[in-house]
Amino acid sequence: MASAQHPVERALANGQTRIDFQTAPQRYRHWKLKIDGDVATLFMDVDEKGALFEGYELKLNSYDLGVDIELADALERLRFEHPQVHVVVLRSAKPRVFCAGANIRMLAGSTHAHKVNFCKFTNETRNGIEDLSEHSGLQTICAINGTAAGGGYELALAADYIMLVDDGSSSVALPELPLLAVLPGTGGLTRVADKRKVRRDHADFFCTTEEGVKGKRAVEWRLVDEVVPGSKFDETVAARAKEFAARSRRGAVGQGIALTPLTRSFAENAVEYGSLSVAFDRTGRIATITLRGPSAPPPPQSADAMVALGAEFWPLKLARELDDAILHIRLNEFDVAAIVFKSSGDPAEVLAYDEFLDGNKDHWLTREISHLWKRVLKRVDLTSRSLVTLIEPGSCFAGTLAELPLASDRSYMFLGRRDGDNKPPAAMALTAANFEAYPMSNGITRLASRFLADPTAVEAAKSERGKMLDAERAEKLGLVTFALDDIDWDDEVRVFLEERASFSPDGLTGLEANLRFAGPETMESKIFARLTTWQNWIFQRPNAVGEEGALKRYGTGQQPVFDTRRV
Amino acid sequence: MASAQHPVERALANGQTRIDFQTAPQRYRHWKLKIDGDVATLFMDVDEKGALFEGYELKLNSYDLGVDIELADALERLRFEHPQVHVVVLRSAKPRVFCAGANIRMLAGSTHAHKVNFCKFTNETRNGIEDLSEHSGLQTICAINGTAAGGGYELALAADYIMLVDDGSSSVALPELPLLAVLPGTGGLTRVADKRKVRRDHADFFCTTEEGVKGKRAVEWRLVDEVVPGSKFDETVAARAKEFAARSRRGAVGQGIALTPLTRSFAENAVEYGSLSVAFDRTGRIATITLRGPSAPPPPQSADAMVALGAEFWPLKLARELDDAILHIRLNEFDVAAIVFKSSGDPAEVLAYDEFLDGNKDHWLTREISHLWKRVLKRVDLTSRSLVTLIEPGSCFAGTLAELPLASDRSYMFLGRRDGDNKPPAAMALTAANFEAYPMSNGITRLASRFLADPTAVEAAKSERGKMLDAERAEKLGLVTFALDDIDWDDEVRVFLEERASFSPDGLTGLEANLRFAGPETMESKIFARLTTWQNWIFQRPNAVGEEGALKRYGTGQQPVFDTRRV
Repeated sequence: MASAQHPVERALANGQTRIDFQTAPQRYRHWKLKIDGDVATLFMDVDEKGALFEGYELKLNSYDLGVDIELADALERLRFEHPQVHVVVLRSAKPRVFCAGANIRMLAGSTHAHKVNFCKFTNETRNGIEDLSEHSGLQTICAINGTAAGGGYELALAADYIMLVDDGSSSVALPELPLLAVLPGTGGLTRVADKRKVRRDHADFFCTTEEGVKGKRAVEWRLVDEVVPGSKFDETVAARAKEFAARSRRGAVGQGIALTPLTRSFAENAVEYGSLSVAFDRTGRIATITLRGPSAPPPPQSADAMVALGAEFWPLKLARELDDAILHIRLNEFDVAAIVFKSSGDPAEVLAYDEFLDGNKDHWLTREISHLWKRVLKRVDLTSRSLVTLIEPGSCFAGTLAELPLASDRSYMFLGRRDGDNKPPAAMALTAANFEAYPMSNGITRLASRFLADPTAVEAAKSERGKMLDAERAEKLGLVTFALDDIDWDDEVRVFLEERASFSPDGLTGLEANLRFAGPETMESKIFARLTTWQNWIFQRPNAVGEEGALKRYGTGQQPVFDTRRV
Repeated sequence: MASAQHPVERALANGQTRIDFQTAPQRYRHWKLKIDGDVATLFMDVDEKGALFEGYELKLNSYDLGVDIELADALERLRFEHPQVHVVVLRSAKPRVFCAGANIRMLAGSTHAHKVNFCKFTNETRNGIEDLSEHSGLQTICAINGTAAGGGYELALAADYIMLVDDGSSSVALPELPLLAVLPGTGGLTRVADKRKVRRDHADFFCTTEEGVKGKRAVEWRLVDEVVPGSKFDETVAARAKEFAARSRRGAVGQGIALTPLTRSFAENAVEYGSLSVAFDRTGRIATITLRGPSAPPPPQSADAMVALGAEFWPLKLARELDDAILHIRLNEFDVAAIVFKSSGDPAEVLAYDEFLDGNKDHWLTREISHLWKRVLKRVDLTSRSLVTLIEPGSCFAGTLAELPLASDRSYMFLGRRDGDNKPPAAMALTAANFEAYPMSNGITRLASRFLADPTAVEAAKSERGKMLDAERAEKLGLVTFALDDIDWDDEVRVFLEERASFSPDGLTGLEANLRFAGPETMESKIFARLTTWQNWIFQRPNAVGEEGALKRYGTGQQPVFDTRRV
């Protein structure tokens, strides 16, 4: 999973050489998606033998990244393939256990880099569940028929409504601290405090009690919404699903579209997609992602024509490919220091697609595509690699694609033409989408974050919507970091990228995680700032991961030995 | 500095056995406070030989905790001893250097626990500078006459106005990442992004450029407010000081009061203060802080009488003692797992003092005392030990002191009388202060944070202001975690404290840092959540602190060797 220089201690199962984020329902090993009218049920039924890596089994519906990749896939399909669904019920297909959380042996044997990125992906998936409810009107009920411990309860916390069977033994629990000396880091602490708004001393009690809380107290303390006797559980869940479905804002829409498999080919130093290429410079530790403009302009004539294009519709296709490329780099290519975004195509054609989306923005499919782009761009923001956009002659960073330079730590724009090259000078353009469609996890747009000091700069940029902005103009508007001409370009860019690769990878991760998120914090951004960062710290501490630490000693019968200093 | 089980690698200078947070201007080795009418100048003039620990010298106005203890002391004295001062100018007494930041050799040789707590204290001091401006009307100008690097520029960032000499070489810089592979963690990244609102790509450039930024670009990029030619520097600084002084909201007030030395005595397992005792249970890893109610009730007859009492005025005395006790535990007693707050006294007398403060709330001294309590209570919130309040018969957790159970991770209240004890049953009481005077670093009160789910619970508590609440009532209002009678008390409390001491110290630190701060985030809370936590992670990473890491290798002539994986 890592590069050649850094062999992992654990091999991927079945001789796989990389983690694949693409799957489809017919290949699921851990989930079953059942659809009945406007209610979908997503059954968690983890295959013990279906672990992503060798060396552990996924007992008691515990999960690893492979299980979560399937969940994320199922959620995307609910969005795009099943627009008639109004409610999703999350439940277990196993008796007396909902989910035991992240697999402990997997965690104990993972590299720090995998642990951190596994948690990030699961967090994104849980945020996606909330996004599904808030923006797609697809509400989630979690029906807990047994023990929901650790990551199991954290999954439940992402739902709109939590039901717990009242059988005298089933409970919800966050036993990470007492059992493993780590945190409920997949949103657990943040959602308990900020979403469920559990009183802090109750939360303290709850999170330090291995066996968790059940029955009436679970409701009183706001940990679940309802407890239901076992004999009435199924019927009550069905009744709640009907109630929620009736209230859904999703409305009646047409048929969904099929999320057909991505066209991809992997080579030693490249990945080729339909609308996007990734090239790896191993020496420079750079991954260059080149996005291509629409291959079949102009946009379709109508929303129906868009639906007919399905997953081949360029904005959807590109978003899915970019998402896959980013995840591939995150989890399989740890040595990449910087991701360089480039593009090729006609910016006017990209603008036309943004206009098409904007003109059809009440259509369910354009809405889903916009929200997909929003989530993919958030994924970019949260990727711990230096992000750089090079806006060169022949590029098409317009509208939605202009979010990439805005998401980057720096951007360079080429001034004029390249000597001996007949490509048109670089142009950048903004559309309505840049001013509202794609908020970051801090709740505001990239332009608002960028111009925190001067909101009039946002207005100035707005007044240039739809115009082709050359490098001089884009620099003046503050949209790019540096505009450079042919004389300086190659050297400046090269020196910058070399310098970036020379810095401490950890230092850059911390720096970028701070500078990218100026302004407000939201529950979502708190998960990645406050919670995740404390968890990452703990994932480095001997009390958790040392030879005598709790994570290593779990299940061995030996007690962990702690350094007793409070830091 | 740490407990006997954990000898530190480095000895305190001059044979000291603990870090002392008490000092006074006549003992300063690193700062000179000069007062001229309504303008104070605080000259940084670090004594190279005056390091807190053995083994390094404080060259180029670099600092360690000892330097910052003096700065924090000077700021308190400006508040209480010099109420006529309207402006503070921070500047260096050394030529061509403002401040080189935290001493690198000190950092490289410190334990993780010391590094983390050193940074926390310096952060609190810088937040205090902003509090001084916002709440005491005492504005700060930082006059940078040379290089302000790293922590030096971070100190400047805490000021209201930053002036930089324009001499072709003087610059502001945050070279931590390129030089040392760590972050500008004393608020630097957060203040650049959220206070100075520097555009994120400019901030990225700035924070990855060793030599920093100077001259016109420093102003254009919002890093400083003004650049001034060397020949006009002193006169311009003086002019700005006059302008700021004229605008100050501090107004003309009477004479200050003397912050006389605290009465303290240290024994092996105890510290005794005038109004407060600390007792250490080394086996149980518990520090019990017992606060005593007013020793000379009732409150003074008038504000003048309060001024005449000076530092002996009970609320002021107790706040200073509590602050010192908390800092002593934080930096000298790392093995303490839990701080238990107890109190003794008559809650009605405590209420009378709160009423006195409220009745004189426009007086400069009561205002300063309230803001001191606010800062001390924030220090409590940010202390990485489990916080527990035991509200027992004979205790006086009323008004301001009731913030301690509200700041605690859990509180236990004794129901009824203790068998064979004639102390009055435990009572708790709230005053106006609990509803506004003491916001946490997240910007809202402890009661608002506690009742995030149900703001009507805050109103219900408010309607009981001034009443003595017995355990049953306090529990019903949600003010305490558990009310227990004589039969259960001893066992429940003992089991809880034993359990707490058995958990991973790091896990608890992370857990508490999440559960204590439900609700909004502010720039101040982002410093401790996002920034500090990333820095703590980096302080554990081999790329910074390993034998081949940048912090260890700095100044050796050897380049650091990095693990190139991005996590």
